[in-house]
Amino acid sequence: MSDAADAHTPIRAGIPEHGRVPKYFAVKTRLEAVLDDLGEGAVLPAERELAVDFGVARETVRQALRELLIQGRVRRKGRGTVVAGPKLVQPLSTGSYTEGVRRQGRTPGRFLIGLERLGADPVLAAELSLAAGDPVWHMERVLLADEERVGLESTYLSVARVPHLDRDFAPDTSFYAFLRDTVGVVPADVDERIETVLATPREALLIGTPPALPMLLLHRTSRGGDGAPLERVRSLYRGDRFSFTVHLSRDD
Amino acid sequence: MSDAADAHTPIRAGIPEHGRVPKYFAVKTRLEAVLDDLGEGAVLPAERELAVDFGVARETVRQALRELLIQGRVRRKGRGTVVAGPKLVQPLSTGSYTEGVRRQGRTPGRFLIGLERLGADPVLAAELSLAAGDPVWHMERVLLADEERVGLESTYLSVARVPHLDRDFAPDTSFYAFLRDTVGVVPADVDERIETVLATPREALLIGTPPALPMLLLHRTSRGGDGAPLERVRSLYRGDRFSFTVHLSRDD
Repeated sequence: MSDAADAHTPIRAGIPEHGRVPKYFAVKTRLEAVLDDLGEGAVLPAERELAVDFGVARETVRQALRELLIQGRVRRKGRGTVVAGPKLVQPLSTGSYTEGVRRQGRTPGRFLIGLERLGADPVLAAELSLAAGDPVWHMERVLLADEERVGLESTYLSVARVPHLDRDFAPDTSFYAFLRDTVGVVPADVDERIETVLATPREALLIGTPPALPMLLLHRTSRGGDGAPLERVRSLYRGDRFSFTVHLSRDD
Repeated sequence: MSDAADAHTPIRAGIPEHGRVPKYFAVKTRLEAVLDDLGEGAVLPAERELAVDFGVARETVRQALRELLIQGRVRRKGRGTVVAGPKLVQPLSTGSYTEGVRRQGRTPGRFLIGLERLGADPVLAAELSLAAGDPVWHMERVLLADEERVGLESTYLSVARVPHLDRDFAPDTSFYAFLRDTVGVVPADVDERIETVLATPREALLIGTPPALPMLLLHRTSRGGDGAPLERVRSLYRGDRFSFTVHLSRDD
């Protein structure tokens, strides 16, 4: 749409536009056309070759590729760079990560980083309607889609709600399916806040991304059908691999 | 919560953690504590001073500050750096930008970049239930909160829906208020997709951010109460200044 728009002269324009396009950005734009032609999975020519083709310094190509990598248009594969597929589209819903990924025809997975029991700090206690110091579970898992590491999820919930989580729950399975089948509760009401943050070195290591990659961070508090707080979740998703959708109606 | 978690040994741990913390990240963590102590609006000591205090190279401090800037923890003010306030929290809703900003006790504003009439390309035509080539308005505006530039909004809608948009609409006012009062229609159903992208040089120039700052991009298609497509909107918000909330219920 922007191409079509650029071809026209505005009927009314508020401010004039100044500024020149940086060289790396012009290269990036040309590279995007190359990616479209090559198609998903195709291997890109070497930086050296691209620099010669475009008549620019190799560092200029490198800067363009760095942005394309951050935005998920290309990805590293072995020593090369290949055209990436489209971002995964995950619904914002009361449902689980598992359901969302399955709906896209992909295979969800998770593996445990750690499960620990700790005393709720005052902020967490307030969010879960507990007293400060009350025992809570903290479970941290890496999220997978088709075996690819795509996110990191930290769940906090009251030990009183699920006393034997450490014994009864297989951490590579769906937590919401466990809650439904074993505890008899599912999130009925969810408040979610979404923002963009940079991955910390620890998070980048666990998810297997470059450090400081822009991520989408979802803060969730959910309540069961009984209205009582169920969990506090912090889910970090690769910004280059995920987008989120939501349907809103006037009556919401 | 992460501090409390780090103090405990996991009951079960899936994988061991390797990797060391980069020096700049350790400085960033210490700086975050300094920011908390200083409080919103306070001026940070000079890079040179911080480098001496922390016993690291000036470039290390600079890298830490760069990440804090991207994440909206600090902002530039004149030649100095000050502690930034919290991110604005905007609801994802069928309502307008204007309503959302007002609900936070801030003053919304916008100014026109351009209003043009163009023929719908096939993708846009499908989204608006038009034929390719049918006339559409494209209106681009910078969004303001308390006079600060925080976003950039591109709205596309059928000329047939609002034939005299260029004559009747004052582009520094609320577009949804105009639609309601003049056209007699408001968005009743909205599909939204949210992702993180890097600002292009043009966008960075218009919004007044550093180029390549992570942004939150919202793609919206809305329908009026009659079920007919109303608009296609592309809203770009500063990732360092905005987060979005949504409330979800099991029945949605």
